[in-house]
Parts: sequence; C-alpha cells; structure tokens
Amino acid sequence: MNYKKLGKILGKIMILEAILMLAPLAVAFIYKEGARNIFAFVIPILALTAIGFLLQIPKPKRNSLYQKEGFALTAMVWIIMTLFGAIPFVINGDIPNYINACFEIMSGFTTTGSSIIRDITAISHSTLFWRSFSHWIGGMGILVFVLIFIPESNDGSAMHLLRAESPGPQVGKIVSKMKVTTRILYLIYFGMTVLEVVILMLDKPIPGYESEQFFFSLIYSFGCAGTGGFGVIPGSVELFHPFSQYVMAIFLILFGINFSLYYLLLIGKARQVLKSEEFRAYFIIVGAAVGLVFIALVWRFESFPQTYTIEEAFRHSLFQVASLMTTAGFTTTDFNVWPMLARTTLIVIMFIGAMAGSTAGGIKLSRIVIAVKGAYINVKKLINPRYVPKAKFEGKTLEEKTISDVFAFITLYFFIFVFVIFLLSFDPINGEMITIVSDAGEYTEKHGFFSNFSATLACMSNIGPGFEAVGPYASYAEYSGFSKIILIFTMMLGRLEILPVFILFSPKAWKKI
Amino acid sequence: MNYKKLGKILGKIMILEAILMLAPLAVAFIYKEGARNIFAFVIPILALTAIGFLLQIPKPKRNSLYQKEGFALTAMVWIIMTLFGAIPFVINGDIPNYINACFEIMSGFTTTGSSIIRDITAISHSTLFWRSFSHWIGGMGILVFVLIFIPESNDGSAMHLLRAESPGPQVGKIVSKMKVTTRILYLIYFGMTVLEVVILMLDKPIPGYESEQFFFSLIYSFGCAGTGGFGVIPGSVELFHPFSQYVMAIFLILFGINFSLYYLLLIGKARQVLKSEEFRAYFIIVGAAVGLVFIALVWRFESFPQTYTIEEAFRHSLFQVASLMTTAGFTTTDFNVWPMLARTTLIVIMFIGAMAGSTAGGIKLSRIVIAVKGAYINVKKLINPRYVPKAKFEGKTLEEKTISDVFAFITLYFFIFVFVIFLLSFDPINGEMITIVSDAGEYTEKHGFFSNFSATLACMSNIGPGFEAVGPYASYAEYSGFSKIILIFTMMLGRLEILPVFILFSPKAWKKI
Repeated sequence: MNYKKLGKILGKIMILEAILMLAPLAVAFIYKEGARNIFAFVIPILALTAIGFLLQIPKPKRNSLYQKEGFALTAMVWIIMTLFGAIPFVINGDIPNYINACFEIMSGFTTTGSSIIRDITAISHSTLFWRSFSHWIGGMGILVFVLIFIPESNDGSAMHLLRAESPGPQVGKIVSKMKVTTRILYLIYFGMTVLEVVILMLDKPIPGYESEQFFFSLIYSFGCAGTGGFGVIPGSVELFHPFSQYVMAIFLILFGINFSLYYLLLIGKARQVLKSEEFRAYFIIVGAAVGLVFIALVWRFESFPQTYTIEEAFRHSLFQVASLMTTAGFTTTDFNVWPMLARTTLIVIMFIGAMAGSTAGGIKLSRIVIAVKGAYINVKKLINPRYVPKAKFEGKTLEEKTISDVFAFITLYFFIFVFVIFLLSFDPINGEMITIVSDAGEYTEKHGFFSNFSATLACMSNIGPGFEAVGPYASYAEYSGFSKIILIFTMMLGRLEILPVFILFSPKAWKKI
Repeated sequence: MNYKKLGKILGKIMILEAILMLAPLAVAFIYKEGARNIFAFVIPILALTAIGFLLQIPKPKRNSLYQKEGFALTAMVWIIMTLFGAIPFVINGDIPNYINACFEIMSGFTTTGSSIIRDITAISHSTLFWRSFSHWIGGMGILVFVLIFIPESNDGSAMHLLRAESPGPQVGKIVSKMKVTTRILYLIYFGMTVLEVVILMLDKPIPGYESEQFFFSLIYSFGCAGTGGFGVIPGSVELFHPFSQYVMAIFLILFGINFSLYYLLLIGKARQVLKSEEFRAYFIIVGAAVGLVFIALVWRFESFPQTYTIEEAFRHSLFQVASLMTTAGFTTTDFNVWPMLARTTLIVIMFIGAMAGSTAGGIKLSRIVIAVKGAYINVKKLINPRYVPKAKFEGKTLEEKTISDVFAFITLYFFIFVFVIFLLSFDPINGEMITIVSDAGEYTEKHGFFSNFSATLACMSNIGPGFEAVGPYASYAEYSGFSKIILIFTMMLGRLEILPVFILFSPKAWKKI
C-alpha cells in the first residue's frame, strides 16, 4: 500500500469535510443557536484541518494508486468522514451517544436515512442541516468531489476510484473524459437540486411551520437529490401539502435515473435515452408498482386503518413507490399497516432499487436486467448446447464476464443479507413490544423477524425506514450498540457495493508491494 | 422433442407408480379400511397401468434423448406422478379438494412435508402410508428407479436424466458407471432405512399408540430417509420417547450426507471421506447451529413459553437443527415461539440445506462452499489483477464455469424466492388471525410477512413447516387455491433445482428438432 499517497488524499478529504462543515456552522449562526452548537462544528473543523494538513507533509515515492488502493481508499473515506462527521452531534448534545451519532451520519453519507432520533422536534437546526446536507454530499459520491481535487491523477487511478464509487455495474463511456464529465454530472445534480428548492417554495407553507419554508425546501431537496430520506418534522412528508408531495415524488423518480442519460439529453441525444433498456425497465416497474399498491389500497380486501380518497390512494402509492424504489425512504403515510400486497410490492422494489449511475442504492435495475438475461441464456444453453449467446444490454454485447460478475454480486448481496439478519438476532430487543403513533393511530408492534429483515433490507439498500418495529414512524434507537455497528457497516456495504469494504478489511490488501 | 420416446418413458413411470401404489393398497387391506379406501387406490392403479401400456405402443424413430428432453422429462415425471398420486386422497375422502390433494402428494414426492391436513387423527392409515411412502420414493429421485428400467439408454441420455435429478452441482465420478452405481446407492438407502426401522422398534411404544409401533417406525423411517417430514400423529415427533428422538436426529444427519461418501466408505476409502470439504463443513455447521440454538434456549435472555431441562434443551436443539438442516421438517417442540437467535439460526440452515447428493433440499452445502470460494477469488482478483486463481474444491481445481453456474443458481434461487413471496401477498389470508395449540400452549398468530417468507423458504428448500401462521403446529390449509398451486410449483422448483422446470415451460424447448 502506498500509505503516504493514501494519507495525502485522505488529508484532502478531511480538509474538504471541514469546508463542508462550514455550512451547518453558518446555520448555527443564522438560528442563533448559542456557543455549544457553534463549538460543535468549530472543534471538528479545526481537528480535520490540522490533521488534513499534517497528512500533506510526507512525500509519496509513487504518485499513482493501484486498483486495490483505490478501493480501500474509498472505504476508508466513508469511515473517516463518519468518525469526524459524528462529532458535532455529540458535542451539541443532540445525540450524546457516539455510536448513535456515527449511525446517524453514516446513514446520512450513505443516503440511507435510517434514524436513531426518537423526538425530531428536540433537535437543533444545525444538526438537522448537517444530517440532510450529508445526504446531498454522499449522493453523488464524496469522491466525485475529490476527483476535482486530484489533478495529478492522469494515470487511471482516478478511474479506479470512480469505479469503486459509482453505483451500478458499468460506469459507461461517459466516464472516459473523467474530469470534464464529473463536473458536468455535478452541475446537473446541482441544477436539479436548485430547481426542486425553487418549485417547493411555490407551495403554501405548512401550517405551524410558516417561517421554515426555505429551510424545509432546502433540507428535503437535499434528501431527494441524494435519495437520502432524513426528515426534520414528525411524520416525514406527511404534513406537506399534496403539491409538494407530488413535486417530491417526481423529483425522486428523476434522481433515480442514470445521470449519464441527462448528459445524453444535454448533448441532444434524446432518442438514445428512450432506447435505454434500463430506462424503460425503470418506468415499467415504477408504473406497475404504483398500480399494484394503488389497487391494494383501493380494493381493501385486507382491512387497514387509514381511509383514503381515490386521489390520496394514488398520491400515497406514487409517493411511496417513488421514495422506496429510489431508496430515499421519505413517507407520506404509515405504509407499515398497509395490506400485504402493497407492502410486499414495496419490499420487491426495495430490493431492486433504481438505475445504476443514479444516487439510489439497492441491487440496481441494470443488474436485475443483466441477471434475467443471463438466466435466460443459461436456460437456452441447456436446451441447445450449441447455442451461442448473443444477448445485448444497452446496445452492447453482454459478455459472459459481465453476467458472471452480476451473478456474483447478487449472490454476495444475498449472503450478506442473511448474515446480517443472523447477527441482529442476538439483540436483546427481539421480542420486545414498541408503541407506534402514526396517521394510522396508536398501535404496538413486536420486534420480530420482519423487523430485522426489513432493517437489514433498509440499510443494505440505503433506504431508511423498514417495517414492523423499524417502520416509517418508528426509529432504530432501540437496537443495541452492537447491532448499530453492524448496521453501520451494512449501510456502507450497500453504498459501496460490497467489494471495496471487503478489500479494506482484507489483510492481503495491506501487504507492502 | 422426441414425443414418442418421452411418452414411452413416462408410460413406464406410470406403470411404476401403479406398482408402488400396491403398497398403500395393501395397508388399506391390512387395516380393513373398507371398499372406498380400497377403490381409492385400485382406480388410479388401473388408470396408470392402462395409460402406461398404451404409451408403449408408438415406436420412436430416435431412441436417444437430448439433454433438454432429459430435463423436461424429469419435470414432467414429477407433475404426472403428482396428478395421479393425488387421486386416492380425493376418492377416499381424506382430502376431498383436488388441489389440496395435489399439494399434499407433491409435498410428499418432493420430500417437503408441508401439509394441508388440519386434523391428522381423522386420516386413514392407507393415506398416511401413501404420503410418507412418497417421501421415500421421492427421496432418492424417482428417476433413480427409472434408470434401472431403461436398459436401452447406453448413449448418455440416462446421464442427462440423472444430472437433472441429482441434487447438488456435481454428480461426481461415482455416476460414471451408471447402472451399477445406482443400484449400490439404492441398496445403501434401503439398508439404512431398514436399520432405522429396526432401531426405532427397540424403543418403548408411545403411550396410547401401543399397537402402532411398527407402522410408526416404518412411516417415520420413510420420512427420515427421504428427509420428508410428514407425521402421522399430532405434534410430529413430540410424543416420541427421547431415545427415538435421538435415533431420528442421528439418522437425519446421516441421510443428509452425500451418498457417494457411503460408497467410498464401502470400498474402504474412509480417509477420503474425512478429507471431503463439504463433509467437514456439514459437521461444523450442524455443530455450530446446535450450539447456538442450545445457548439461546438455555440463556433465556428472550422469554419464551416452554421450560426445558438442560437435556431437553440439548435434545430439542439437536433434533430441530438436524431436521431443518436436512430439510426434513420433523419437530419435537414448537420452535415458532423460540428466541429470535434460535429461530434465525434455523432460518440460516434452512437456506443452506445439507450436502449435495443426499436426499435433502435447500441451496446445498457444496454450492455455499463454492460460492464463498468464488467470492474470495473475486476479491483477490481486485487486490491483484494478475492473480491466477487456483482454488480447489474436493481436491479438484474449481473452474470458473462451475463458480459462475453456482452464482447463477443462487441468484435465480433468490429471485424466485422474492417472486413467490410477492405472489403469496395476493392471498386473502394475509392479515387473518389463526389459533395455534402446541406444547407452548394456545396462542394466536397473525398471517403476516414472516408467514409468507417462511412458507416460501419451507417449500423452496423442501422442508415443510415454517414460522408464524405456517409454523410446526399450524398447516398450509388456510392458503387459497392459487397460493397452493404457486407453492406446488415452488416445491418442484426446489426439488429439481430450478432449471428443469424452466425448460419444461419454455416454448423453445418444444420446437421440433
């Protein structure tokens, strides 16, 4: 390992995090939150800056990075960002327990949105801002920032970083002109976020929160852009007017699209966008899921507490599907009490996730499409052993290696999934009753298998809320410290798509070469 | 497709089924069950014989079978055996609904053991015998019988059949001398079953069932041998004396071992057996699972209704692990109310299943071992792109193709798993409360996500009982006809390891060649 070079890059990231923390610091000033909240950010800013500059001093012998170093670095970046990003919450007292604080900010950076905060109304604005801002930072990948800061990497090492960082199996042609493209993607991301803020400002303010409209618009746009999902008022998006709910649902769906398609759109290749198989699959699945949930809500062959008008049923179907498919996790109603058909549909799309190259988590639609094609090829080969597969994906021939990698990924995803559920079964919380208050009334849920199952799914796919005891109106606060640490790594595994985390913890990767 | 040849083989299978049905017919005579129960078997026996002989008349032009035909045939055999095997239950009135009857006998042939019978005490001996006998038949694969009946297949077509039929990714060297080996395997299977019957006869009879000891010994030995799991008295194995419970647990573990290892043992190669990686992994996992469940039961950090002595806790741990890992599904106590750690441990081993080449279902241990090695190779390749994998499994170099096939299988398993849960979510039973009476007392369970999840797992891995509303003291009776048909196919997919069923329903496979 090229420790000095790794240190140098990590140092730059730390300085970057210090700069990013100036934003919540400003919020603490604006809302006049007092010395403790200001120091909560000043202290880590100073620490990050000092260590960051110290790490610049050693001169690396080799300036390039091997692929394994790129992967390990990516995983390290998330851990360091989290360890320092959690400090403000502990100092300002909003989340006094450090493991809880790490859980919260890892949930932010990984754009998960699972929260351990029981009473959101007791939290300061600067904390709320920093959590949601971390969604926005994490969304396009911390390293997309970084690429702009590594001008010396013209040897492909930046490519290694992005390959580890970018969601989805294929980075695609667009990445070849690395730095330019990165900036274009980032501009699209920035522009869309601003647009959403502006449109959300057009709505009537939420009664009781009249003075907060700009703050809320900003916060929820951060969450949509990064497909994160932290809310700042009780009930996530429940109290928002229908207009804002529709706007957010549409923006969520837009942020679930592969960003290189926006690039194609910008350069006038709209037809190519419409031809994209993943793009089509995305809208077919979103449409089908909305339809199924809507039918389940309107048909009512299984009773559930809420009574919706037809418009409400449609809006809640659209919003929940958009929010869970893009793995954001915002909610407009308590879907935990919905009919089984609606809930299971949501679970299926939680596994799938949105498009590769978007800010969403999950297995990713492109992998699902490739796996289905791969399975089809396998069956055809058995039917006719002389069959030569000529399957294509997005116009390019699907190579056996690509299919095999996708199968390997999904297998690993499944193994880790089962293993995390197993680790959560050690938690003393299992079997306890918790009380939930939502738009469905007050009810109790036992912390059972479904809670652990959905907690694992929600963290691994970077969604946020699950079902049962970790439903949208509950929190992850009741889990033990051990379980929280497990879930922190699960979020990271999900966000970095497994392998970089494995490499970071593989002793072989650390041997000197 | 070589229809005439397929018809000929199917015809032979039908005649074979008719012969096998003579056994339950004899039971109906022995227990003097009356005309209706006798006709229940006589009618399908006559029908099977007549159709079977008619199918022998056409002369096939080609005498060999292609691989795809072998696969499709295998799937057809199970469907035909089921369609006819279900008839007696409908005629004798034990299971008046034909879909239920098909569910029950498919559950038998696939060695699943999921039951739709609510009151087992109302069922006739001939029905009970036929159900459990079907486990024994299904256990080693109907086609292992068949191979003995196809002397003309010296062109490798028998090999295609066995490849589709034999559980596990590798048929192994042992299969090369097809017919001899088949007979040896079958003798081992037969011998072990007889041995278990004899040992079970040594125990004191169960109070209240003194006259039934031989019948029970036979029935439960069938279930252990096929790793099926149908019981004939309320509470599965709960009322048996500890001696019998230990005996069954040990035989279950023995029937979960790859049968070719017994062959190696017979020819004096015990050392090679001990060297088998899958064999070692099997005992390590059984040991670890028994330990974890035992700790969860003794520790009691989560409360549950039963109170066990240390010996009972050990016996129940051993029995449940042996029964669920080998995918039999017999139970000695209501594990549905056990602590989460115990239940989740059971779920993990339900996914894994026992060794390939045994009568067990599930993903199979060899696949798990190969997948873990494959994942390790993938990580190593990322760390060092020039790394040339030289991983071995059972002494042979692991080829990329083998690893890739295993990944493909597990991915498909996972996709089908999620899809079946989705299909079950349409059932109106979801959300209903059911009452369960067990050794844990009387309690109610809501039919929730965990019910559908565990029903899918239990059918796909050919286990039988699940959790919650399909727990060991509940039944599958409450599911709708649609769900039962889905689960019938799920059992078949699990038993035939997915691909043969796909090929049967692939229009391409039916094109004339």
